[in-house]
Amino acid sequence: MTSANVAELQAEVNRLRHELETVKVGQDTGDQIYVGSYLLERLAQLGVTSMFGVPGDFNLGFLDLVEDHKTIEWIGNCNELNAAYAADGYARVKDQSIGVVLTTFGVGELSAINGIAGAFSEHVPVLHIAGVPNTAQLKNKPMLHHTLGDGRFDAYTKAAELFTASQATLMNKSTAAAEIDRVLTDCIVLGRPVYLTLPTDICYEKIPSGRLRVPLSKEPPENDPDVENFVLDEIVRLLKDAGQDAIILTDACAIRHHVKEELKELLVKTHYPVFSAPMGKTTVNESYDRYGGIYVGSISHPDVKEKVESAKLVLSIGSLKSDFNTGNFTYSVPQSKTIELHSDHTMVLHARFPGIGMKRLLPKLTARLQPFKEEAKQQTVPLFKRVVPKEEDNIISQAWWWPRVGGFFKPKDIVVAETGTSSFGILDVPLPEGAVFVSQILWGSIGWTVGSTLGAALAGRELGLGRTILFVGDGSLQLTVQELSTMIRTGVKPIIFVLNNSGYTIERYLHGKYRKYNDIQNWKWTSLLDVLGGEGISLSYTVKTKEEAEKLLDDPEFASAKKIQLVEVIMPQHDAPRGLKAQAELSGKTNQYVADATSI
Amino acid sequence: MTSANVAELQAEVNRLRHELETVKVGQDTGDQIYVGSYLLERLAQLGVTSMFGVPGDFNLGFLDLVEDHKTIEWIGNCNELNAAYAADGYARVKDQSIGVVLTTFGVGELSAINGIAGAFSEHVPVLHIAGVPNTAQLKNKPMLHHTLGDGRFDAYTKAAELFTASQATLMNKSTAAAEIDRVLTDCIVLGRPVYLTLPTDICYEKIPSGRLRVPLSKEPPENDPDVENFVLDEIVRLLKDAGQDAIILTDACAIRHHVKEELKELLVKTHYPVFSAPMGKTTVNESYDRYGGIYVGSISHPDVKEKVESAKLVLSIGSLKSDFNTGNFTYSVPQSKTIELHSDHTMVLHARFPGIGMKRLLPKLTARLQPFKEEAKQQTVPLFKRVVPKEEDNIISQAWWWPRVGGFFKPKDIVVAETGTSSFGILDVPLPEGAVFVSQILWGSIGWTVGSTLGAALAGRELGLGRTILFVGDGSLQLTVQELSTMIRTGVKPIIFVLNNSGYTIERYLHGKYRKYNDIQNWKWTSLLDVLGGEGISLSYTVKTKEEAEKLLDDPEFASAKKIQLVEVIMPQHDAPRGLKAQAELSGKTNQYVADATSI
Repeated sequence: MTSANVAELQAEVNRLRHELETVKVGQDTGDQIYVGSYLLERLAQLGVTSMFGVPGDFNLGFLDLVEDHKTIEWIGNCNELNAAYAADGYARVKDQSIGVVLTTFGVGELSAINGIAGAFSEHVPVLHIAGVPNTAQLKNKPMLHHTLGDGRFDAYTKAAELFTASQATLMNKSTAAAEIDRVLTDCIVLGRPVYLTLPTDICYEKIPSGRLRVPLSKEPPENDPDVENFVLDEIVRLLKDAGQDAIILTDACAIRHHVKEELKELLVKTHYPVFSAPMGKTTVNESYDRYGGIYVGSISHPDVKEKVESAKLVLSIGSLKSDFNTGNFTYSVPQSKTIELHSDHTMVLHARFPGIGMKRLLPKLTARLQPFKEEAKQQTVPLFKRVVPKEEDNIISQAWWWPRVGGFFKPKDIVVAETGTSSFGILDVPLPEGAVFVSQILWGSIGWTVGSTLGAALAGRELGLGRTILFVGDGSLQLTVQELSTMIRTGVKPIIFVLNNSGYTIERYLHGKYRKYNDIQNWKWTSLLDVLGGEGISLSYTVKTKEEAEKLLDDPEFASAKKIQLVEVIMPQHDAPRGLKAQAELSGKTNQYVADATSI
Repeated sequence: MTSANVAELQAEVNRLRHELETVKVGQDTGDQIYVGSYLLERLAQLGVTSMFGVPGDFNLGFLDLVEDHKTIEWIGNCNELNAAYAADGYARVKDQSIGVVLTTFGVGELSAINGIAGAFSEHVPVLHIAGVPNTAQLKNKPMLHHTLGDGRFDAYTKAAELFTASQATLMNKSTAAAEIDRVLTDCIVLGRPVYLTLPTDICYEKIPSGRLRVPLSKEPPENDPDVENFVLDEIVRLLKDAGQDAIILTDACAIRHHVKEELKELLVKTHYPVFSAPMGKTTVNESYDRYGGIYVGSISHPDVKEKVESAKLVLSIGSLKSDFNTGNFTYSVPQSKTIELHSDHTMVLHARFPGIGMKRLLPKLTARLQPFKEEAKQQTVPLFKRVVPKEEDNIISQAWWWPRVGGFFKPKDIVVAETGTSSFGILDVPLPEGAVFVSQILWGSIGWTVGSTLGAALAGRELGLGRTILFVGDGSLQLTVQELSTMIRTGVKPIIFVLNNSGYTIERYLHGKYRKYNDIQNWKWTSLLDVLGGEGISLSYTVKTKEEAEKLLDDPEFASAKKIQLVEVIMPQHDAPRGLKAQAELSGKTNQYVADATSI
């Protein structure tokens, strides 16, 4: 757990530096403002413009301040889990900002906890604010509604501690501002969710606003120069030895820890071939000519597999080696030929260098590697292209659908893919320049994309990105369907492709292909938006054949996405994308339900 | 926490007795069965016939066994929170059995946790089974999907420990049966949720079935005879001194800890006037002539308040003094004139008697109190009756609606009321004989009734009860709406009254009456069932006026509930039942969002 310790130390260094600066500014200066308003100003400074959540009796007073705030908009969600998912989606698209979800004591915050745990798992900065009873009640513990009835008022915070990187309970106005600053700094520096309880009375305590003049620091700390130089020398030596035979492999944490620009610079200045793990998709522009597509262990395209696994050296950026991100742990890239750059440490083959983070290392590395460009250029890179197969029948097969819909994407589109059929299907399709890929491959909570699409679309609208396009199965959509209503209310206009294949397809592939428990109730999908408040301002379609699908995808009116649109895509029940079939075969082996095959 | 300790000791005594018996039977006898099947047989013995949940990759093997089981039906829910709510509703109606919810590792179980915490808060016996990775994976901790990515495979169990009374992780086939028996016994004896993790491999390990011949004991332990006699003498002496001037007050735990029959016997044989707290509604037949209605502190009907508060002695059965259950702690019944019977202890005025439980005490008390009958009979009891007010306008006001719909109820109906407008509105209406009242007054998680109605209706269908009738606000229904689909699929036929008053009314009364954050998106409520799979097998209505409401309520076809039916009831946005207004005024005072009014 060294890296976690280093991360904590880094966060502490940041906090102390910030505290020191605020002391210099003078803690008691500035106008008096409410604690709740102080929090909102900090969020506004971090670029937060949407706050997700559900009103509840212990957060209503704070909501007055939110509703009256000039730049932060209250997005009331239909339920708390969806709200947490939306905050997560918002944070993913709105790089360098954070997602915020507001719930009420007990009932609200616990409903959101799976969404928060997902943000933890996938390194997404989300602030969870729980409105809680006043400080006198928190001390006296009367049997209020939303309590466990046994006086354990701290149980919800204990639960939050398991799934957030940092927590604060604001019990005192004199420390409230420093506590708020501490958890927010942890949120942005660690890139993980944090938890803040806001008692009804503390929210309206007045404190000096002077601290707000010192912005929160997003900067990672400096690397130790001696160690950094040593690491740079080592990497340069190894790459030199590898000659032209080295490749770059990008992954989730390159996005989450904000090194996309530094990485782009490295690629442009060195011309090394680059590949991406599934969770790193769109870290690199997928139409870049030195980009070879997705590496996912044994289920990679054969050309990609060959190229990555035969390289003498792999420079890995921000890797996160989960089962679905590695073809069920089938990487054939030994540690002895891998250099791993992470947010808070570096691995050079087997040697670990804690505290050497990639954000500051990468520009220096790029400068040192530029001379290798000519040699690196010599390498060929497999072409990552979209090939729509010719099929005799008119059924919308998975093999046909994904490359075909790939041709529908435009630059800067936000593409959201639900865990399962969609997240596997989309991997083989290159996305256009500036497109953002949103998926939850490690945590894999089905239904997550629906809330997440709301957040992503709001962030995309603000940033001037393209359309938001969601791919979700019928089974998954049922978990979180009501959030379509919030999309309608907030006026975002995603295109929602509902892959109707009559049930939980990923589960069928893992186990129980013909079992009833993987069936679901069929809904009238094309009436859904109307019922949820979208009548007259939404459009819905069903496509049953290749021909119908082609016609719709080629319709410029449809493509212009001027209204929220839902497309029911009828697909065969027992079909699945290539990647999912292969993954299911691999993980099915591990999860076999027979007593004599339980090893991993 | 003495009573908790006593409860734990009692549970341990039960467990040891059971273990002893099974050892006598012989642990290694009987046919070999799968651990998963052993669990199912135990559930079948407890009368479980429906299992709620969502399939996920770590529970699919167990689901094969569930689907193939002869008497247990798999009810696949739309999401896990709804499934937990359904298990809770099932357990409330199916007295003496338990609710069961099955989820998958991490993502599934955390989504359900608010439902489990609610069952804990409200003393409802629910078993939460989480399907988890195989034991080798649990030990080696690879970075599987659904994990936090940092190897903390125990985080979800730690979260479950906060909200369940007992937990077991089945890591070993030799102890699996004993562990299953332990948590199930805790579930039924403590009347609280428990948590069980089932690794994929352990599920299919074979163990001897011999233990199954010794049924699990639901019996509470004996009271210490000396202490019990002392307590009886004390109570009898006090009641004698009070003469005719004593009343009985029933509450939630009389239902949860199964003393309805014992209580009925006490009432019939003594004729003391009886009242009920909100959470104890329907503990006593509400048309019983010695029943005076609901006591809820200062917001009680004046006659009830007078009668209860002027009594010389109050015999309280299973009380649970939460804010909403006591008119925000405004009981004017001092401890010095109260006898409290609980599941695991007794209070005689200020004296506490741990370990003296009401289940065994009540029959003995009834026998001793019979001689007081003639005197007790002398007391008058305020009439608890339904009065439909004459109103000039044709608007469906809250004041008119509740007594009017009260006339629609029939004996043995299950009446489910959502927290807020509905749970307050229904209190003033007497329910017919054998009716079951289902509400969540302490935990108060909005949206809970929708899942709960599914479970209640399934239990009611099996037990041959009457119709299941749900009252839910438009705001609350949006949280959990998809579970209407599961109702349709399982063929239950509840009547769902959707009180459309454009937003979160209870919140408006607490704070922010005219604030936008209490508004919600309006839906086409009468098309909802059709869209969710109910076309042709459901009916929907809107009533906007008293006249329309009368006509529908008087329609025998509607009342026969042959199909699932949804009624949108249009009500004024800023109206609320009397009880809610009074409660909001009281708790609004405590939660005032001004810095100088924070005491409770």
